Amino acid sequence: MAGGVGGRVVVGRHVYGNLYGCDARVLGDEAALITIVKEAVRVANAMLLSIGSYRFGPNGGLTVFAVVAESHISIHTWPEHGFATVDVYTCGDHTDPKAAFDFIVEKLSPKKIEVFYGDRSMYSE
Amino acid sequence: MAGGVGGRVVVGRHVYGNLYGCDARVLGDEAALITIVKEAVRVANAMLLSIGSYRFGPNGGLTVFAVVAESHISIHTWPEHGFATVDVYTCGDHTDPKAAFDFIVEKLSPKKIEVFYGDRSMYSE
Repeated sequence: MAGGVGGRVVVGRHVYGNLYGCDARVLGDEAALITIVKEAVRVANAMLLSIGSYRFGPNGGLTVFAVVAESHISIHTWPEHGFATVDVYTCGDHTDPKAAFDFIVEKLSPKKIEVFYGDRSMYSE
Repeated sequence: MAGGVGGRVVVGRHVYGNLYGCDARVLGDEAALITIVKEAVRVANAMLLSIGSYRFGPNGGLTVFAVVAESHISIHTWPEHGFATVDVYTCGDHTDPKAAFDFIVEKLSPKKIEVFYGDRSMYSE
């Protein structure tokens, strides 16, 4: 991943978004979200190192967090509001964070999304 | 966290950055980074649920990832380049992600930083 003068020394791309009007059943389904994140890791062409999930109250939101060799993927959900936030941040030209983000969005079926892009690259000076 | 019409239903703030010219010894010190992230959780006024760390090769980079009740905090490092990326994403008016971000930056001693802000709030429609 070394670059020339003015090039990228580290390639880091972070696609994230806020999803409105999602399928509340999916947002509250811990097993489903874990499966979605595992699949998203594959779609991103990243390597899974660990995955964890946390439920906030019996009918509350969930956090699913995957650490990958290339950075991380997370979903935080608020089923009571049909709201979720998604982060797919991966390093390396071999990864495709946007494809993984789009995959997660498709599975959560939002009515509206806000999508943002963060450049997490290191540039040579 | 309920809001009025046009207000914020969920308050989510995500401060993230790319840090150049950091102290390479700190970037490669797993125990130090874990301590920094734990302290940052306290500075953010968030509640720690879990923390994990991963080292990439004997002299390679590290990932430290904390899941908090209010979302997540992460540091990814490239000691060989003096480069690190930091994410502090917390929900709720009681949290202060910028203070936690600034705390981490101070500990990593970068020569240059790029700072970004992502609004992860849900607004009523």
